[in-house]
Amino acid sequence: MEEKYVKEITPKSEDFSQWYVDVIVKSELADYSPVRGCIVIRPYGYAIWENIQKLLDRRFKETGHKNAYFPIFIPESLLQKEAEHVEGFAPEVAWVTHGGQDELAERLAVRPTSETIICSMYSKWIQSWRDLPVLINQWANVVRWEKSTKPFLRTTEFLWQEGHTAHRTEEEAEEETLRMLQIYRDFAENDLAIPVISGRKSENEKFAGALRTYTIEAMMSDGKALQAGTSHNLGQHFSKVFNIQFLDQDGKLKYVWQTSWGVSTRLIGALIMTHGDDRGLKLPPRIAPIQVIIVPIFGKKKEEVLAKSRELYQLLKEKFRVELDDRDEYTPGWKFNEWEMRGVPVRLEIGPRDLEQNQVMLVRRDTGEKILVKEADLLNFLNDLMEDIQANMFRQAKKFMDDNTHTATNFEELKELLINKRGFVKAMWCGEGECEKKVKEETTATLRCIPFEQEVISDKCAVCGKKADKMVYFAKSY
Amino acid sequence: MEEKYVKEITPKSEDFSQWYVDVIVKSELADYSPVRGCIVIRPYGYAIWENIQKLLDRRFKETGHKNAYFPIFIPESLLQKEAEHVEGFAPEVAWVTHGGQDELAERLAVRPTSETIICSMYSKWIQSWRDLPVLINQWANVVRWEKSTKPFLRTTEFLWQEGHTAHRTEEEAEEETLRMLQIYRDFAENDLAIPVISGRKSENEKFAGALRTYTIEAMMSDGKALQAGTSHNLGQHFSKVFNIQFLDQDGKLKYVWQTSWGVSTRLIGALIMTHGDDRGLKLPPRIAPIQVIIVPIFGKKKEEVLAKSRELYQLLKEKFRVELDDRDEYTPGWKFNEWEMRGVPVRLEIGPRDLEQNQVMLVRRDTGEKILVKEADLLNFLNDLMEDIQANMFRQAKKFMDDNTHTATNFEELKELLINKRGFVKAMWCGEGECEKKVKEETTATLRCIPFEQEVISDKCAVCGKKADKMVYFAKSY
Repeated sequence: MEEKYVKEITPKSEDFSQWYVDVIVKSELADYSPVRGCIVIRPYGYAIWENIQKLLDRRFKETGHKNAYFPIFIPESLLQKEAEHVEGFAPEVAWVTHGGQDELAERLAVRPTSETIICSMYSKWIQSWRDLPVLINQWANVVRWEKSTKPFLRTTEFLWQEGHTAHRTEEEAEEETLRMLQIYRDFAENDLAIPVISGRKSENEKFAGALRTYTIEAMMSDGKALQAGTSHNLGQHFSKVFNIQFLDQDGKLKYVWQTSWGVSTRLIGALIMTHGDDRGLKLPPRIAPIQVIIVPIFGKKKEEVLAKSRELYQLLKEKFRVELDDRDEYTPGWKFNEWEMRGVPVRLEIGPRDLEQNQVMLVRRDTGEKILVKEADLLNFLNDLMEDIQANMFRQAKKFMDDNTHTATNFEELKELLINKRGFVKAMWCGEGECEKKVKEETTATLRCIPFEQEVISDKCAVCGKKADKMVYFAKSY
Repeated sequence: MEEKYVKEITPKSEDFSQWYVDVIVKSELADYSPVRGCIVIRPYGYAIWENIQKLLDRRFKETGHKNAYFPIFIPESLLQKEAEHVEGFAPEVAWVTHGGQDELAERLAVRPTSETIICSMYSKWIQSWRDLPVLINQWANVVRWEKSTKPFLRTTEFLWQEGHTAHRTEEEAEEETLRMLQIYRDFAENDLAIPVISGRKSENEKFAGALRTYTIEAMMSDGKALQAGTSHNLGQHFSKVFNIQFLDQDGKLKYVWQTSWGVSTRLIGALIMTHGDDRGLKLPPRIAPIQVIIVPIFGKKKEEVLAKSRELYQLLKEKFRVELDDRDEYTPGWKFNEWEMRGVPVRLEIGPRDLEQNQVMLVRRDTGEKILVKEADLLNFLNDLMEDIQANMFRQAKKFMDDNTHTATNFEELKELLINKRGFVKAMWCGEGECEKKVKEETTATLRCIPFEQEVISDKCAVCGKKADKMVYFAKSY
């Protein structure tokens, strides 16, 4: 029975893509819906999103941001104001053409992102330097009509947050852009235990309408890159077309400098693909909806074991997200597999012999290690254990990323690595979009970012051989 | 300047409707958007919504509910499955007809409510009695193409929560329906300080597709009723058309019994219209984004006063939602008006003389009362004061509701009261829809609910004079 249950998930090594979908559906993170390209986020998956929201929202508020809510509909004329922006988004917009029985005079876009609707309000709200900075964030759903979709990573509708800020000076806007990227990095590494490369996107890869886009790039356990969060310095692109002007202290009318930044439910996909294994999901304690699952093993002392399990549940509940699986219809072995598949960091087993010894058995999801702990030490031990699991999961992921990051000095090497090896390839780049395109055409890999942490590999572009002073990352990506 | 500022809000007694809009726009709760019938919820308004979410979500989780997220789009064929439901909602649906450049094979409704999409998933998830109850809630945006709109009360898009549950028996579903109504009542009265009448809707007024609808009805300070929350027992209407069946313990295949229940951002409108006065908004402490506003009065000791203000801010911050208004460009008088208009429950003034006396001046928004408090007593005093303001605001609103609730024994009285007096009218009703319609046609008032707390006014229907054993509330409403 145990054996069979585990086999229901396609092994990761056999078919990564099918493994990913199996984990999502079997662990009840999400399910397919009757709407093309849309998923249902089930309670277990949504609880992860709630934890993501809580941990990020606190960081946003600590840095002075406030939440607001803007309409989901954007009149077509508004969306078209910024030329690059509309070009980037128009192909993937869902259009509302009818309200009730009536055809609308102007089509409404279901927001693919909210720069335009928000800018139209900022031009009304911002008059003086005293009104600046404006630091607003929105938690919302957005829609992009994607050709091919994959749960959490790319769906027609998804949930995200989008920050939109306005500043007096270019410097302030750049500072904000980098501050928010740093918050994303801190969150990804410390809470999600996902190591990331942070840096700047190339001109080809930047956000439609931005001056500069910064990104954090994570490596999934099949070696592909996943863009986990982006922060854009919008410059004055939008303020000029939406006429967002303020009277500065020097008496002059000036355009504001803007930023926008966002992360989405695709982070749940990143969690699955960074940490999961053949047994299923593996969640870092800080983000796990259930941190400890108590599985009683009744033996011949059902009443006593159940009473003690309930007592432990009450004890742990104050400090941890804990659940007690006291279902009669399943065997302990079945439950072990179930909760391993669902990625709970720590399993607490308690049976008749443990009762006598005043102890419990703890089992780590990340290493499989079993540890006997005296009841009296349990709270403190668990506290340390959570920290240890969190740190170990980050270390494992970081080691995987390091082990799968290669270096290329010429185009042959670059091609060979990108086609035949999984992972990232570091190489020098001259800055030309043509070289980027050539790599993409011949390998399907893209330039992921120009990292802040630079290394000098050589002084020549790995693609064209001309002078180059930037080291960049190339990778296939989601 | 002070005088002028206050005058910017149209007096409530002069034009209630204009007063309402003035309060919303001037206190920056919300703003009109370039999208027909949609508002922007600005940070101050959204902070109220965040508090509503926090206080309700806790109650939902305590009663075993979990959050999830379902797609915003509903294929037309799905929406049409339950006949009464589609009839009720079709006239107000916004339709997506194009994705990118392509016309869709089937139109997609932007959800006006989610029963149909959720039922389509429940039919997949529910197989056995062990899968029940299913207790799911969703925080989401919904769209209803309304002919006439009013900020917060009725907008094309609004934010809400919708609970959707499935049960083994009719009794369990009815219990759940009433449990959630009771949670709404408790929340409205204890957190929003809004007294409500709870009861059942008539057949004419029930939710499209429900077996029974229960409601909480609040009285706005112009005497009109506002439906503040509803809870529906859906019976087996949806489970039969969506084929949500489970194998019961007795080995028989049965249809589940369902409920749905929701409150929305219209509660913010209810807060404004229940408590506000000529000076603007008046917020109960439990829901106020800012509970205490510190306004320093510099006099000739700016440095010292500012230092003390900051010290008090740090002190209060641990226990209260507090802000310090240290802006140089406004006078204290201007600030007093500003924060009164924005409804902050307590203003803390501190000037040079207070420094010497180790005291501060507290001013209550609900009564205008000024209270000198020694710094050493401040925390405890404020704690009690918040409770007192909360209770007093409920008492005031309850008194207003009681004072404006009248009784009619025949149709002449009923008409006279509904046309010429503001408020609710209690009257006996025979149960016939025809009598309801007659009242509506001649007075525009509707039957708000058949309250749980019944009184025997007479044994005759106030409309037709036939035998009647139900006492009901009639009122004009939003």
